[in-house]
Amino acid sequence: MMNELSKKVLEGNVRAASHIIRNLEDQIPGTDEIMRELFTASGKSHIVGFTGAPGAGKSTLIDELITVYRKKNKSIGVLAVDPTSPFTGGAILGDRIRMMNHSQDEDVFVRSLATRGYMGGLSKAVGEGIHVMEALGKQKVIVETCGVGQQEVDIINHAHTVVVVLVPGMGDEVQAIKAGLMEIADIFVINKADRDGAGKLYQELINMIAMSSKEGSWKIPVVKVTGFKEPKKFSQDVEEVYNKIEEHHKYLVESNLLSSRIRRKAAAELNEALWAKILQPVLDDLNSSGEIEKLVDKLVSRDTDPYTAAEKVARKYMK
Amino acid sequence: MMNELSKKVLEGNVRAASHIIRNLEDQIPGTDEIMRELFTASGKSHIVGFTGAPGAGKSTLIDELITVYRKKNKSIGVLAVDPTSPFTGGAILGDRIRMMNHSQDEDVFVRSLATRGYMGGLSKAVGEGIHVMEALGKQKVIVETCGVGQQEVDIINHAHTVVVVLVPGMGDEVQAIKAGLMEIADIFVINKADRDGAGKLYQELINMIAMSSKEGSWKIPVVKVTGFKEPKKFSQDVEEVYNKIEEHHKYLVESNLLSSRIRRKAAAELNEALWAKILQPVLDDLNSSGEIEKLVDKLVSRDTDPYTAAEKVARKYMK
Repeated sequence: MMNELSKKVLEGNVRAASHIIRNLEDQIPGTDEIMRELFTASGKSHIVGFTGAPGAGKSTLIDELITVYRKKNKSIGVLAVDPTSPFTGGAILGDRIRMMNHSQDEDVFVRSLATRGYMGGLSKAVGEGIHVMEALGKQKVIVETCGVGQQEVDIINHAHTVVVVLVPGMGDEVQAIKAGLMEIADIFVINKADRDGAGKLYQELINMIAMSSKEGSWKIPVVKVTGFKEPKKFSQDVEEVYNKIEEHHKYLVESNLLSSRIRRKAAAELNEALWAKILQPVLDDLNSSGEIEKLVDKLVSRDTDPYTAAEKVARKYMK
Repeated sequence: MMNELSKKVLEGNVRAASHIIRNLEDQIPGTDEIMRELFTASGKSHIVGFTGAPGAGKSTLIDELITVYRKKNKSIGVLAVDPTSPFTGGAILGDRIRMMNHSQDEDVFVRSLATRGYMGGLSKAVGEGIHVMEALGKQKVIVETCGVGQQEVDIINHAHTVVVVLVPGMGDEVQAIKAGLMEIADIFVINKADRDGAGKLYQELINMIAMSSKEGSWKIPVVKVTGFKEPKKFSQDVEEVYNKIEEHHKYLVESNLLSSRIRRKAAAELNEALWAKILQPVLDDLNSSGEIEKLVDKLVSRDTDPYTAAEKVARKYMK
């Protein structure tokens, strides 16, 4: 018999969906059972990842993008992944009021997800949050992550289309990072494009794309979005972001690239589940028995080293 | 008998140290044996982490800080952790010329570390790179990481003193993130403090620190560093950063906080080693047998879910 919460989510109940997302954040035992049921209902939505540095204006952009999607009668789920304080475990950005323009629209479901935990915890919760949105029946699921480096790797594991948001006027390090973003981005957005340096940034991106493009493959578009001081221009620019996302989706389907992205996503979810079912129980056991403290003592006094200690643990738990 | 490379590192041979760091990046089998030997020689250096968004000017700051430390006759190791391209596996920033002012000084050892791999790989390699620097006998080891969010969590696991570098003129999201950085930072540096908004940023930080400070505990200092267009002023400002780092080190020792940070570091290293000795071999085995592809097929067709698949794997490998 199906869990009551899963059933409600599959019927489109947003309160049940919110409840499950909170459980994911808090790592409530038993949530796996619900996620198992929701997994079979997932896999039908188009997942769009938005990533970029803090201050790039991603939330405002997504807020406007929701408006565009609603005009086209698409149902939307937005999962805003918050960096988490490592000490309190609480969300750093969670208290911001996000995408309030759409709070009365029942076809828009916006939730922030504050994730904690060591290593795979963040990525696992993101993947599961997406499954909840899919099970709710949202046609488009937008995932907003904030960061550079490892977090962008996570987003490509979970999204079909990745939008990288940049702003003009960052430093030289960003310049170098752009080369890495080339491999992640399906679409570039230059936000706050009325600022100094937007033209230069645009030209750099265009040049990099020209160098790396292969014939017949997707050519990464660069969309300039002008700051929201001019609401009308802003709306037009975001409509162009919408067009590019939809073009990319069409390309994914027609080129059969979608199926390879679906496989990549499944492989990432499997990796995360393996972490949760293999390493996590060992860590929990070592913690609750106090064994971990004893091992740390020995490491501090240099009576053992991490490799020897871990091998001993592995022999105890592994066949 | 000790490995030849370990022996050379312990004698201060920088070429051997570079070789090992390359092996860490490339995950060459057998590197664990060397790290085991170097681990016992580590634990004596003061580890200083520098973190902040790309474009914050961390490398230039560290370059000048090396000059200050060399004037005080301290030997220095710098490990610059580069975001890695998830596809090519190569470093994104690695080609930049870093800290070239000190390339002729044998008491300064600067290496960049490009890390790849899933989940714990990055953090493990950072910890090990630090051990190599320590085994070389460097009194101060500076670790430069670039990022927001999860990567800052990694740095506090590996450093005794954490310096967070901010620049004026970032957006509102950064504002919110600052609250989270409060829990990580031992020292704030406002770099490029001649830019608009530096006074406002300074005041915000001071206010936040005042609210969160506890009596008798370390009061986080905020150091303004003026852009390197005025070399003399820049030097003076960086000297102040040096002073605060040394004050913090003194505080760590006298308050006995150092020993709890050493424990935190050891616990993180143990976690990473457990990942490498427990989960990694399972993943390697599933990959080489082709089992992982079969499981991904079943996930894509929704014939199983990640939880069920992972439980089956766990039963096969775990006692």
